[in-house]
Amino acid sequence: MTRKLNFYPGPATLPLVALEKMRDEFVDYQGMGLSLIETSHRSKEYEAVHDGTIALIRELLSVPSNFKILLLAGGATLQFGMVPMNFLRKGAVCDMVLTGSWAEKAFDDAKKIGTVNVIFDGKSSKFTTLPDALQPTKGAAYVHMTTNETIGGLQWQVFPDAGGVPLVADMSSDILSRPVPVEKFGLIYAGAQKNLGPAGVTVVIIRDDMLARCTDDIPIYLNYKTHAEHNSLYNTPPVIAVYAMKLVLEWAKAQGGVRKLQETNERKAAALYQAIDQSGGFYKCPVDPRYRSRMNVVFRLPSEELEKEFVTRSTQEGMVGLKGHRSVGGIRASIYNAMSLSGADTLASFMKEFAAAHR
Amino acid sequence: MTRKLNFYPGPATLPLVALEKMRDEFVDYQGMGLSLIETSHRSKEYEAVHDGTIALIRELLSVPSNFKILLLAGGATLQFGMVPMNFLRKGAVCDMVLTGSWAEKAFDDAKKIGTVNVIFDGKSSKFTTLPDALQPTKGAAYVHMTTNETIGGLQWQVFPDAGGVPLVADMSSDILSRPVPVEKFGLIYAGAQKNLGPAGVTVVIIRDDMLARCTDDIPIYLNYKTHAEHNSLYNTPPVIAVYAMKLVLEWAKAQGGVRKLQETNERKAAALYQAIDQSGGFYKCPVDPRYRSRMNVVFRLPSEELEKEFVTRSTQEGMVGLKGHRSVGGIRASIYNAMSLSGADTLASFMKEFAAAHR
Repeated sequence: MTRKLNFYPGPATLPLVALEKMRDEFVDYQGMGLSLIETSHRSKEYEAVHDGTIALIRELLSVPSNFKILLLAGGATLQFGMVPMNFLRKGAVCDMVLTGSWAEKAFDDAKKIGTVNVIFDGKSSKFTTLPDALQPTKGAAYVHMTTNETIGGLQWQVFPDAGGVPLVADMSSDILSRPVPVEKFGLIYAGAQKNLGPAGVTVVIIRDDMLARCTDDIPIYLNYKTHAEHNSLYNTPPVIAVYAMKLVLEWAKAQGGVRKLQETNERKAAALYQAIDQSGGFYKCPVDPRYRSRMNVVFRLPSEELEKEFVTRSTQEGMVGLKGHRSVGGIRASIYNAMSLSGADTLASFMKEFAAAHR
Repeated sequence: MTRKLNFYPGPATLPLVALEKMRDEFVDYQGMGLSLIETSHRSKEYEAVHDGTIALIRELLSVPSNFKILLLAGGATLQFGMVPMNFLRKGAVCDMVLTGSWAEKAFDDAKKIGTVNVIFDGKSSKFTTLPDALQPTKGAAYVHMTTNETIGGLQWQVFPDAGGVPLVADMSSDILSRPVPVEKFGLIYAGAQKNLGPAGVTVVIIRDDMLARCTDDIPIYLNYKTHAEHNSLYNTPPVIAVYAMKLVLEWAKAQGGVRKLQETNERKAAALYQAIDQSGGFYKCPVDPRYRSRMNVVFRLPSEELEKEFVTRSTQEGMVGLKGHRSVGGIRASIYNAMSLSGADTLASFMKEFAAAHR
């Protein structure tokens, strides 16, 4: 086959070796005469995959021992509800940092449960910039932030300090793309379908003192304690997605881990931003240069017609998924871990040629 | 490979042709130069799978047009909480039919949200029998039942009447194993990992008037309306599990649909219950013969030592997953749709030989 260069925003490109390995062992897993997806989640074969996945996350992200790593379902969207349900009842308040569409969704759910203070709202700048620092409300249950906004193409480059208030972060779209000082956070959550694997599993990294604060008067699946106490095997986990995620994590480790991935990610992003900045104004990135995302590079062309043409031509050249989100238009190149440097370079070259031809 | 005979209770055996098809097209889906799990959930390729899955469920179960079919995540366990969160607030009451471990879990979550009447409790009979009829509370928001109890091996053979009260059913372990009069129900939910596919996706079938009653003051993922209004694409669905489920549903259709599957399931169950009943008391099934499950055949041997020996010997013969649930012990043979009649016959023969040798 001719493999496409895949710039989809998520579900997104995955390492070919991980896909091939899953294919090769899919019907008969390690000679057991069954597919792994047909075995009980209590079987030793699945448990090795489950525990191995958790161990790889701990190793790759250097997760300290006072944090639990949970494998859940429902995506970041379910976390928008679970976080306030666990921590924001009985008069508690939380702070929200509104940096784009994803942060706003977390905000909408939190408001249904408790009192929410907005301590930064980027709406007036059309979500193109971030605050220099956070000033959390004294006594807040947590501050919620979104480390990367996939639609706006906006990313925190340095993780902010929240004083003594627990920092809760949606890292769905940049987890595993760079080192993270996990100890600065109270809770981190991430849907898998960008850097971790296929859609269908959600990683939660939660500090022990946050776990202890979870409330018991909510449904059992929604309580983080349930999953922490049962090593995410209280109910049947999303076996097939965990299985794929483990193979992606093994690839990430073989690449040299998050420092190496970060290095490549920086170079990929630099290639594209350079193509934008050196286009003499043909391409425009609306984002504050200090906070441009290394995962989702968004830009506009001089007209919507040219943007359409850009998508058509790039598709013909084997590059898919470049159309911007329907809510904002333009072009978006999502360059998660599994996009190679040469893939990003190919797009950068195409951008230069396209600009030269249409200037 | 020598494929095992897989009697796991779930995740469970899947049709070999479905596994092989997924393997063959896994890395390059229909020549698109990508895996399906790498494409956007808004791509036409994934949408065809998504819509095709829903259409197959509608066709196979003859779901009337005033019901929506949703593809969610989190398993039946999340439904234990979602059902009362949507329907049991502001003073509403519901009825519960306690038939075993799964019904009790639904009960535990409902109690956290609202007022619950227990209209049948099988505990005193150790969950070995079912009521002849239901007498719901007048004005109850719903009656919750569990159509098959996988641990107890107990199954409703005729779906009960609930008067005018909406019937909500957990069908996780017997959906698609027989025809269902869907119009008798207000809501049906089922984790996929028995008859529908791998763990990681949950099917909800909900009547329009129930949808209209869902409350809007709960987190967005937990509201059935969210998913109904967006055709289960409000957030990223569990793509990899939906993909596998579609292949399993195609197999089910090729088998001749639910009537044919039921016919085979009856014969499989008959073979095993006959081996029990004709063993001269060597095997004992504790379940009221009127309500013996066609999906999970449970039985005891004269001693725990013999049960251990039975598991060891059957494993040597290529039969896996026969150990009973840790909470009740004994033997359990789960014979979901993808277990063939010849597979069940092989187990029945083994049972006869084992009894003869150890009597």
